[in-house]
Amino acid sequence: MLLAALVTNPTIADLGEQAVIQRIIARLAMPAWVEVGPGDDAAVIVPARGRREVLTTDALVDGVHFNQAFVPPDAIGHRALAVNVSDLAAMGAEPRAALLSLALPGSMAASALDGFADGFFRHADAHRMTLLGGNITRTPGPLVINVTAIGTVHPRKSLTRAGARPGDDVYVTGYLGDAAAGLAMLRGSDAPAATSCGGCVGRYLKPEPRVRAGRQLAHHGAASSCIDLSDGLADGVRQIALASGVGVTIDADALPLSDEARRWHADAGTDALTAALSGGDDYELLFTVRPRHRGRLRGAHRRIGDLPITRIGVVTRTPELVLRDAAGTHDLPRGFEHFR
Amino acid sequence: MLLAALVTNPTIADLGEQAVIQRIIARLAMPAWVEVGPGDDAAVIVPARGRREVLTTDALVDGVHFNQAFVPPDAIGHRALAVNVSDLAAMGAEPRAALLSLALPGSMAASALDGFADGFFRHADAHRMTLLGGNITRTPGPLVINVTAIGTVHPRKSLTRAGARPGDDVYVTGYLGDAAAGLAMLRGSDAPAATSCGGCVGRYLKPEPRVRAGRQLAHHGAASSCIDLSDGLADGVRQIALASGVGVTIDADALPLSDEARRWHADAGTDALTAALSGGDDYELLFTVRPRHRGRLRGAHRRIGDLPITRIGVVTRTPELVLRDAAGTHDLPRGFEHFR
Repeated sequence: MLLAALVTNPTIADLGEQAVIQRIIARLAMPAWVEVGPGDDAAVIVPARGRREVLTTDALVDGVHFNQAFVPPDAIGHRALAVNVSDLAAMGAEPRAALLSLALPGSMAASALDGFADGFFRHADAHRMTLLGGNITRTPGPLVINVTAIGTVHPRKSLTRAGARPGDDVYVTGYLGDAAAGLAMLRGSDAPAATSCGGCVGRYLKPEPRVRAGRQLAHHGAASSCIDLSDGLADGVRQIALASGVGVTIDADALPLSDEARRWHADAGTDALTAALSGGDDYELLFTVRPRHRGRLRGAHRRIGDLPITRIGVVTRTPELVLRDAAGTHDLPRGFEHFR
Repeated sequence: MLLAALVTNPTIADLGEQAVIQRIIARLAMPAWVEVGPGDDAAVIVPARGRREVLTTDALVDGVHFNQAFVPPDAIGHRALAVNVSDLAAMGAEPRAALLSLALPGSMAASALDGFADGFFRHADAHRMTLLGGNITRTPGPLVINVTAIGTVHPRKSLTRAGARPGDDVYVTGYLGDAAAGLAMLRGSDAPAATSCGGCVGRYLKPEPRVRAGRQLAHHGAASSCIDLSDGLADGVRQIALASGVGVTIDADALPLSDEARRWHADAGTDALTAALSGGDDYELLFTVRPRHRGRLRGAHRRIGDLPITRIGVVTRTPELVLRDAAGTHDLPRGFEHFR
């Protein structure tokens, strides 16, 4: 079995469970606050002093959240962690640690697992996150990756979806619809994606969670509510409106679209605005700011750096979700709904 | 769609994502240390004062870790949490909270999801655990349930696999091989399992993690190492030996077998000893005790209650795993290995 593993490209089933776990544990270094790390029944950590702890879990399923046919293994590893880090960012939290649970098809190549680990750990290093432990099992179905991400936030500084009030301005970071355009480009291309590619394709493959933006918004007390955009702008607006008991009017002409996405939609004859409203996977932050806290937002923005922040609408008292353009007002389209 | 859901037994796909999430969130009540609970991007909690935090994650896959054909939904919910709580128990930790991530086939009946939630939350209540959040996604493959369990332990009190030393006695809680016998009974039976059934079948369907035993062993400083038995005694012995850099000799005649398991194996013409060594899913604790700490073990046992604790072997300097019986000594058989 071992010889076969040396001369060919072995599968997960060739390697066996212990070798698969060792392949991952071999990459790890532990900070002092980790008293027991991976390899025992559970991890033991010292909580961060004077902080609240922030916890989230999210799964990616092959064929639902990505497609191994055109998403390279390191991008899958990056995304599996990034979608969770993005949830921490939306709370204004600082990432600290993660747990990783893999359900692996026996036919998966060991090289694909190595590529996955490359992308996962490079992203973890970028956010100074420590892998505390995990679990590996086989599955007769598709690859399922479950990540639990753990962060910290100062008491009373965390951002939630529930604080928007009528009159607050609505903002979004970065550009909308890039990831959806990148996914469409990948689906329409015969060539496998290069993992270093930038632009819309890169934004789909390796989204950058807005951790710095979330932390600065929280630190400056600038945002009254916040959410990350995983299922499109319209869905994010709806979630903040529901949680806060308010309405939102979005200004269609204000939505930030990248030049590349605009060009691609023009060439494809598709509607860039629809993509910006309903396209998922952008992992930008959508947040609201009280008008009297615009100074705080400017303070936060100076510390965030180059990331664009665009005012795209306003919070209203009537609980309606409205899209306003030159032609008038319309109902905001519904976002992507799982299971349908 | 809603009407259909009222008059028939709807599926997950009929209900849609929001309704599925609401069905679960509706069950929850939050203690004061939860500042943000389920429904936001992440949960925010106040860490337990003066404690270490203990974290573990484990997944169950339909067709691998259970079979919906003969494991009722509430037993699946119970087991999904129990296997994680058992990892906390093995560290000597007190359970506190959980995160739940479900990958659901669209064809799954909503009533099965309700049954799952019944079993999950009944077990969570039994251990005073709070569900902090989770994630629900569809999958084209089998049901996958991923749980992250969070507990607390006093500083310097946590148990690990790594502390066994030559001369330590080896102990196990409860009975070995009951769950494997129960699984075999279920597989050999035409009748669906009653969820309230006891004995070996009950031990397989609804294992009771040894939280009280783990906490008392940790509190009294009685155990030098500890692990929970998920993949059989032989595997647990091997893990402690590897982590501690020691050998172990197990006394075959000392292994605690229940009368029901003995009778079942006698009737089936199978070997009860093999089942006790390699049968998984018992979720008993295997631990070692320094001879001079036997008094501490007695102190812990008084607080644990009725649960039997049996001395089954000794830790040795030479790194061999030995099974000793009236006929002499043998290599300890290998435990269950995933992926093979």
